Amino acid sequence: MGIIVQKFGGTSVGSVEKIQNAANRVISEKEKGHGVVVVVSAMGKTTDELVRLAADLTSRPSKREMDMLLATGEQVTISLLTMALQEKGYEAVSLTGWQAGIQTEAVHGNARILDIDSDRIQQYVDQGKIVVVAGFQGASSLNEITTLGRGGSDTTAVALAASLKAEKCDIYTDVTGVYTTDPRYIKGARKLSGISYDEMLELANLGAGVLHPRAVEFAKNYQVPLEVRSSMENENGTIIEEEANMEENLVVRGIAFEDQVTRVTVCGLPSGLTTLSTIFTTLAKNGVNVDIIIQANTNGDTASISFSVKTSDLEDAVNVLEQHKNVLNYEKIETEKGLAKVSIVGSGMVSNPGVAAEMFDVLAKEGILVKMVSTSEIKVSTVIEQDSMVKAVEALHEAFELSKSRKAEAAAQARQA
Amino acid sequence: MGIIVQKFGGTSVGSVEKIQNAANRVISEKEKGHGVVVVVSAMGKTTDELVRLAADLTSRPSKREMDMLLATGEQVTISLLTMALQEKGYEAVSLTGWQAGIQTEAVHGNARILDIDSDRIQQYVDQGKIVVVAGFQGASSLNEITTLGRGGSDTTAVALAASLKAEKCDIYTDVTGVYTTDPRYIKGARKLSGISYDEMLELANLGAGVLHPRAVEFAKNYQVPLEVRSSMENENGTIIEEEANMEENLVVRGIAFEDQVTRVTVCGLPSGLTTLSTIFTTLAKNGVNVDIIIQANTNGDTASISFSVKTSDLEDAVNVLEQHKNVLNYEKIETEKGLAKVSIVGSGMVSNPGVAAEMFDVLAKEGILVKMVSTSEIKVSTVIEQDSMVKAVEALHEAFELSKSRKAEAAAQARQA
Repeated sequence: MGIIVQKFGGTSVGSVEKIQNAANRVISEKEKGHGVVVVVSAMGKTTDELVRLAADLTSRPSKREMDMLLATGEQVTISLLTMALQEKGYEAVSLTGWQAGIQTEAVHGNARILDIDSDRIQQYVDQGKIVVVAGFQGASSLNEITTLGRGGSDTTAVALAASLKAEKCDIYTDVTGVYTTDPRYIKGARKLSGISYDEMLELANLGAGVLHPRAVEFAKNYQVPLEVRSSMENENGTIIEEEANMEENLVVRGIAFEDQVTRVTVCGLPSGLTTLSTIFTTLAKNGVNVDIIIQANTNGDTASISFSVKTSDLEDAVNVLEQHKNVLNYEKIETEKGLAKVSIVGSGMVSNPGVAAEMFDVLAKEGILVKMVSTSEIKVSTVIEQDSMVKAVEALHEAFELSKSRKAEAAAQARQA
Repeated sequence: MGIIVQKFGGTSVGSVEKIQNAANRVISEKEKGHGVVVVVSAMGKTTDELVRLAADLTSRPSKREMDMLLATGEQVTISLLTMALQEKGYEAVSLTGWQAGIQTEAVHGNARILDIDSDRIQQYVDQGKIVVVAGFQGASSLNEITTLGRGGSDTTAVALAASLKAEKCDIYTDVTGVYTTDPRYIKGARKLSGISYDEMLELANLGAGVLHPRAVEFAKNYQVPLEVRSSMENENGTIIEEEANMEENLVVRGIAFEDQVTRVTVCGLPSGLTTLSTIFTTLAKNGVNVDIIIQANTNGDTASISFSVKTSDLEDAVNVLEQHKNVLNYEKIETEKGLAKVSIVGSGMVSNPGVAAEMFDVLAKEGILVKMVSTSEIKVSTVIEQDSMVKAVEALHEAFELSKSRKAEAAAQARQA
């Protein structure tokens, strides 16, 4: 049998008990006859504690030294998990990022993986050992310790799975899988048994938050099948792979949403070829993340451009625009807070042109005004009043029959049993 | 000017404040124009906490994984001290053991340093940077993280000083220097301004505890001048070097002592050539550390051998002897607890044959019975009743005029001022 890569996040290794629990998950795959490579994050609050220590010493720590500091977090976890596996009678060996051959750019705090020399891991696997690798970290060609930034451990796991040609990469986390929508808000939310990389990417970018988009992209590029599953509950999770050998061919796979959205409209811009590029280059250079962009009713010489930002970024956005008023040459800025973004995602949309229309229809029937729209091949996003967000998601979840398929799945499971 | 290596132990970097204090010490040498390389231990209780985490998972952690775990301790300190130096406006860079080129045996828990490739450190020093190196750790030729065992950070500092041909290696600790005897027990104890490597070795082995014997040996082999000094008090410490350009040519330089000593006597042994070797090889193989050894009154066919052990090792020692009674072929074992060892140390003894006699005389006058004696060229050790230990040390300290020289030193300092 082939290799399985398992990844345990910070909450899944946050205590001695949880480390033992993770060890049991590892052993269960090993016992099935797989080669097992495990990737772990730092224990629970370790990273926060280290950051606090640094903050007590300096308000502007160098990125190199922060990497040196934070990389200890995963190193502690790998040794402890390895000890737990050894205590349970299994041969295991821990490896830091540099020992595991994870080569990154010579950049600190947010390095990308350039290459993985997985010979050492492969050797240990061939010897029947469980290999426990520190996530989130690597080393540059100059032997500098680097870290991969947000979602780093997910990326390590997927990259190792690709390099080792693993059968599968299991992401153990504190949720049981990927849901049709956020179950904390929507009662009918249902765990998906399968989803495609592209759908997951749209959901991840839209704030579903289970898996870092970078890791999903990596998995898509190298065609690594992922499974998102719970480290505590013993049930199947959600499989993410190229195309859904999924039991149901849903047009809409999931609904993502986020509140605290603000719309900014820049009015009276000169309508030239470079207007769009100038305005968003300026914002990007100044670190303002823009989400949906709409260029509306160009009439003659002036244009008006709307975009949405997180409300927490509004002040920055307006400041940047005002500082560059001379260059951008607009008339005025209008802003509207208290908005939310609701998006439907599904690869089936490509061949179903009426999906966006159906979404608008559902919202209209609920009396919800759509203020902005953005579409991709597998996604339709709308910006609406924040107060209507949950109502909109519930109505869409119902209309696209996302909770219904729970019955189909239950029936399928009953047949299996 | 040349390079100074500074070493700060766990208590000297045990908090954010202490790290800042250490940073000031570093800067003060840097400002004098020296190249500065700093070696640090793990912060205060960090190692204990890590050991406790491991103990929660297993009662027999693998040595490799303990090294992996414990090596994080120094890595945290190097990054924090480097940040503190940068915050104060100095260029600094941290290096783990493997990054610093510290190559060790492929042994875990107690590896010896085989070689140091100090090119990277030297480059940084040449660039004017302060280099902060993790003590206690290195890497084997197979890229395994190793640790050096007890006194490891002292050894790292001395080895780096030798490799970098440093002018001097300063060991910052929580005492102000090496004393004529333990100032916690003996009022007249006086800080020495200088002491030779050999004297320090005898004192270190005898439990003076300031500096690990391994580090002193290393310093002696490579003729690295050491200074033991306080990280908190701003005063000169004790310089350790080959031969004492020391202001006073004392016959006895210091008095070491320890309690909780037990004498074990093995009676009725066959008096053959191999008896001594058999008995102590057996004890050593079973991990029992023996201190003073005396072979007494061989009369005809049987011999009796006495040795001293720490009282905490007594049970082990007796068990080993009893398990091997058949091979060792002795009559019986006698033990005497409640003893202490008191030793006088000084390189001047070599040319003063009467020193041991004077010691016995002092003890006799105090009514103290000497139960065992052991001598080397620069040391006389006696085993006496534990209850008389402090009285003995006080009398010897007085008799060999160790506290008097305080006046000489004070006078010398007054002349300087």
